Amino acid sequence: MKPLLDTPFTRRFAVSHPVVLAPMDRISDGHLAAEVSRAGGFGIIGAGYGDLDWIDAAFDAAGDQRVGLGVITWSILKKPALVDRILDRNPAALFVSFGDAQPIVKAARERGIPTIWQVQRLDQAEQALKAGTDVLVAQGQEGGGHGMDRGLSALLPAVRDAAGKETIVLAAGGLADGRGLAAALMLGADGVMMGTRFWASVEANGSEKAKVALTKAHGDDTARSSVFDVARGLDWPSQFTGRVVQNAFSRPWLEDPAGLSGAAHKIQKTYEAADPDDYSVRALIAGESLDLVNTVQPAARIVETTVREAAALLARAPDFVIG
Amino acid sequence: MKPLLDTPFTRRFAVSHPVVLAPMDRISDGHLAAEVSRAGGFGIIGAGYGDLDWIDAAFDAAGDQRVGLGVITWSILKKPALVDRILDRNPAALFVSFGDAQPIVKAARERGIPTIWQVQRLDQAEQALKAGTDVLVAQGQEGGGHGMDRGLSALLPAVRDAAGKETIVLAAGGLADGRGLAAALMLGADGVMMGTRFWASVEANGSEKAKVALTKAHGDDTARSSVFDVARGLDWPSQFTGRVVQNAFSRPWLEDPAGLSGAAHKIQKTYEAADPDDYSVRALIAGESLDLVNTVQPAARIVETTVREAAALLARAPDFVIG
Repeated sequence: MKPLLDTPFTRRFAVSHPVVLAPMDRISDGHLAAEVSRAGGFGIIGAGYGDLDWIDAAFDAAGDQRVGLGVITWSILKKPALVDRILDRNPAALFVSFGDAQPIVKAARERGIPTIWQVQRLDQAEQALKAGTDVLVAQGQEGGGHGMDRGLSALLPAVRDAAGKETIVLAAGGLADGRGLAAALMLGADGVMMGTRFWASVEANGSEKAKVALTKAHGDDTARSSVFDVARGLDWPSQFTGRVVQNAFSRPWLEDPAGLSGAAHKIQKTYEAADPDDYSVRALIAGESLDLVNTVQPAARIVETTVREAAALLARAPDFVIG
Repeated sequence: MKPLLDTPFTRRFAVSHPVVLAPMDRISDGHLAAEVSRAGGFGIIGAGYGDLDWIDAAFDAAGDQRVGLGVITWSILKKPALVDRILDRNPAALFVSFGDAQPIVKAARERGIPTIWQVQRLDQAEQALKAGTDVLVAQGQEGGGHGMDRGLSALLPAVRDAAGKETIVLAAGGLADGRGLAAALMLGADGVMMGTRFWASVEANGSEKAKVALTKAHGDDTARSSVFDVARGLDWPSQFTGRVVQNAFSRPWLEDPAGLSGAAHKIQKTYEAADPDDYSVRALIAGESLDLVNTVQPAARIVETTVREAAALLARAPDFVIG
């Protein structure tokens, strides 16, 4: 599909559409990231906690498509050698989130690799700008997976004000269609990053059962907590919680954080013993945009319908204006 | 200022601008509500927990300006006679939030008084539509004061989809300028409701010290909790938390809900003993839009600049579209 929207993001990264794949850990593999890029968006591999063999395989799977790579800052900072190995693969951008990524940004900049720094609070945006990031992502708490408490509607314009006109800003959290893209542009963003919508795509690296479950779950069913980090034995800093579709396993612990840490060992055993596709126990990680996600679609169609819908809304926007 | 924007809300309520004053308890008094209506917006008195003498005085202060009245559903349902007394004052609309307002909506409809039902979850929107509300407000968790956990960016389009084309939908939570209004229209709203922005207005019913404190506080400083409800001895259902600028008094309790309820009596004594303008103890109730609120302004100017900025953004929106 030919370009329909023109923003500083599409120009800077020479892509057709201002739609970015969120680097969902393992779900955003080389295949999905390449498919988003092939469709004219910007695919980012989700390298999560940093397994080099998996990362190499993902880059190989992406072939000659330009894709970025995303890491979890606090985790990758424990394995500094890995940053160099990742940069050796020359990603189209290095995405960082959840921690002070200043040394990572410096290493990427020295190689001329652009950086995309996702923030959850306004004070983090100031930190990221000081480190010289090329792109800021304002992530609202609506998003699936890890995040913090601030909502997108107020965080995004505040991040734009902090960034000035020069730094590219993307919006993430709760966005899954052209309405979200058009609204993000009005709030000052140059494009959107979507996770949940691409998780329910044909190419996402996950089971059919998980994808069908996504299309049936609702935003009201999700909540942020640390329950599934405890269950998976992941050592996340406590300020970052994960938005997940809540289930019979997680609900009793939502209101009992003290009990949760006391029962960590038992919880982990129950979790590990469950079938990976048993979502009455296992984590179905997804954001509040689930209400807008009712079918599993090819990633290319998601990119195209999002852009088409946004372009139509923006073209008609003057109809609201009198005279 | 002459009308610049035309939406189903401005038409249905015969107002110039799709900007509604959130009925902040006591802060949105008759004077502020009338000023917003006089400027071409839609003012709603915040009657909170329902003190009839205060309500009568507020309507008297509003004079011949058409203003609505807002109540807290779970609280007003304990005083059913009050609903009739309020409806006797013939408000331009009755606003309800926080509970199943079906009997209140029924009473208002019998008198031909339009109802505005604010929801915090998608399942509540279905309840409100079934009761026959005229207007739905999708309130994101970004907003100041009481609310729930869902964010505006995903809740608003989902509420629009549930409402269909006929029911008017307003957006609330984190919105404080024309960017927020333009974005809300793109997400499917017919107008916005703003609280924090009008709290920092010349006419708001609060101290100068509080208003200056608002202009200096940041969205990052706010959080949702029940701490200040416990401190004020208010018996809110636990699913509704309040967003407040956090301070030295509240912070220790944020991570200790069990300790909080045990210490309720002591907390209340400390709170009551503090100077009402001592915001190291007292609740400065405000939303995440604080980053966008840097000066105390006349309410009329807030209405006008919001609409002017939104109209300019919407008129230029086709610039994003190629060809």
